[in-house]
Amino acid sequence: MDRDKILLTPGPLTTTLRTKLAMLKDWGSWDADFNAITARLRSRLIDIVHGQDTHVVVPLQGSGTFSVEAAVATVTPRDAHLLVPDNGAYCKRAAKLSQLMGRKVSLLPVTEDRPIAAADVAARLDADASLTHVILIHCETGTGVENPLADIAALCEKRGKGLIVDAMSSFAALPIDARKVRFDALVAASGKCLEGVPGMGFVFIRKAVLDACAGHSHSLAMDLHDQHQYMEKTGQWRFTPPTHVVAALDEAVTQFVEEGGQPARLARYTENYRTLVGGMARLGFKPFLAPAVQAPIIVTFHAPADARYDFKRFYDGAKKRGFILYPGKLTQVETFRVGCIGAIGPNEMRQAVDAVADTLAEMGIASGVPAL
Amino acid sequence: MDRDKILLTPGPLTTTLRTKLAMLKDWGSWDADFNAITARLRSRLIDIVHGQDTHVVVPLQGSGTFSVEAAVATVTPRDAHLLVPDNGAYCKRAAKLSQLMGRKVSLLPVTEDRPIAAADVAARLDADASLTHVILIHCETGTGVENPLADIAALCEKRGKGLIVDAMSSFAALPIDARKVRFDALVAASGKCLEGVPGMGFVFIRKAVLDACAGHSHSLAMDLHDQHQYMEKTGQWRFTPPTHVVAALDEAVTQFVEEGGQPARLARYTENYRTLVGGMARLGFKPFLAPAVQAPIIVTFHAPADARYDFKRFYDGAKKRGFILYPGKLTQVETFRVGCIGAIGPNEMRQAVDAVADTLAEMGIASGVPAL
Repeated sequence: MDRDKILLTPGPLTTTLRTKLAMLKDWGSWDADFNAITARLRSRLIDIVHGQDTHVVVPLQGSGTFSVEAAVATVTPRDAHLLVPDNGAYCKRAAKLSQLMGRKVSLLPVTEDRPIAAADVAARLDADASLTHVILIHCETGTGVENPLADIAALCEKRGKGLIVDAMSSFAALPIDARKVRFDALVAASGKCLEGVPGMGFVFIRKAVLDACAGHSHSLAMDLHDQHQYMEKTGQWRFTPPTHVVAALDEAVTQFVEEGGQPARLARYTENYRTLVGGMARLGFKPFLAPAVQAPIIVTFHAPADARYDFKRFYDGAKKRGFILYPGKLTQVETFRVGCIGAIGPNEMRQAVDAVADTLAEMGIASGVPAL
Repeated sequence: MDRDKILLTPGPLTTTLRTKLAMLKDWGSWDADFNAITARLRSRLIDIVHGQDTHVVVPLQGSGTFSVEAAVATVTPRDAHLLVPDNGAYCKRAAKLSQLMGRKVSLLPVTEDRPIAAADVAARLDADASLTHVILIHCETGTGVENPLADIAALCEKRGKGLIVDAMSSFAALPIDARKVRFDALVAASGKCLEGVPGMGFVFIRKAVLDACAGHSHSLAMDLHDQHQYMEKTGQWRFTPPTHVVAALDEAVTQFVEEGGQPARLARYTENYRTLVGGMARLGFKPFLAPAVQAPIIVTFHAPADARYDFKRFYDGAKKRGFILYPGKLTQVETFRVGCIGAIGPNEMRQAVDAVADTLAEMGIASGVPAL
């Protein structure tokens, strides 16, 4: 039996067959038909953040991290000083890639089980006038915590500081409105909540800062200003686009719109989240985060206290039953993660909980209750 | 009628349905099943250059240019001095991306209709002891010219200079044998002569230089040393891989092996090339390059002298008949290009020539003879 597994991960996700079928065609990357897909896709991406008046969107080949690196490289000048509030693995990665390209970085450490406090960011900016930009991870998938984007955007705007948002795991699911929330760059990718396949990212850049971005980048491939200029002039990507991935994302966005856009997607993911957490609670499992700070994207659960628990066996048991779980990313406590996103609904979440229950039984574990 | 067009371009190419069907499955990027695909693919890629004893291969997300930039960033130290013999657009691009990341670059200009002369490269290296590396474009698709890889590799080895080869358009079609030809890095991509879909590249790095590559890169995403270390340790990609593109490439490589590997692919492309050039000659068209220096990958033709010729109309006429041509990339003479690569054979090339003949007739052009 080679039935496709359901991916309960932070991405790549389970996509619809309709999205995958859009890849059964080869496109000439120079051809007008493909340029039309790129143009339509870009326009519909901007609609999702209500950014037609304020922002452009620049797609980029590669994984989401490539787009985060490109956003920092393009938007911040070489002598920028970046504040990175850090409550997880993706915050640390953003800091690392910024440092590597030569930007000055200051970390603001925050406990992993809490959102970043806007007041702490404000205090740090006020204490060090040399800081020029903040990098914020909207939903930190290391744990699943949602950080307060609107508050931090407001305090950055008030102080004239730039803001780069990694919205990889939140874009298209959590509300982001460029008319109300000011950001210089916001980054997301194809294989996340839009439910496309992985292989490209995209960065919204504020029109007001775009011209000043010329010449910032240390990298030709990652120069989003150059990519944007070329795309505006020719309708084409500078370098070979992942044509099949682009076509799949375009098809995924059509389904996103049909479903009812971001509010409908958030509603489905929220129902997935509730079904998951409710079912897992009945098995004794406890989420790592308090519900108030938990985004309905990915849930980190404590590992069961039972000595018979072993993640590898647990993972294999769930996989055998059709579900791909995700390992934890915390260093202090043993955890595992379960995604609520992708082309799945409450049915799949109920079946996933059943698969976990059966796996526990097979492992001889009476309950998922963690050591506390 | 929405029958798929045949792509006569330097890539993306026409792929087989079997290759595209491999994308109808979602893979967990952390899962052992996907890791097995990555491992099998890497091993079979190294086999193609007979490099199991001498080289590792590091796949990278993004277009081929991303991998070229990553190869330069990873293999050359920050104080390197690179010689870039320049007979076309891709040479200029390699020079530009190297300069942008801060490497010192010297160009060796060569006429676009001629291969790079090994003696000229040798003389330049001998005249400037500060040069540390050579970047060579194996097959310059700006024109279609084949540069003398073996000769230049030998003279670099003799002088102790590093060699980075952009084999984007030649890999898997022209013979490259790492046992006989020494290179520090050799770069290719999924959507070229292996006939996969675009979205990832890969770089062969010589084991003898690998350890010294740590810390060279200005970019986290493009650090192939880091990517390699992580992949060796975990079997996984550092950042989300384009899973569907990887699966398609793996399937394409299976078909490559079944066809008879590089010699069989070269034989098919050579037959495509002969069919194309012979047919176009009967219509009066003249290739830009002399046959002796022309790789059977992509052919640049002079535009017809007839005043009624217009590339846009010519392109649209061929497209209407099912074939996507490619514009010229030369600044001095008006040309267009036709690819001989992809999942196509002499039948398609004959039909393409017929489509060109019908298009000329429709445009009222009696012959493809160029102005000379």
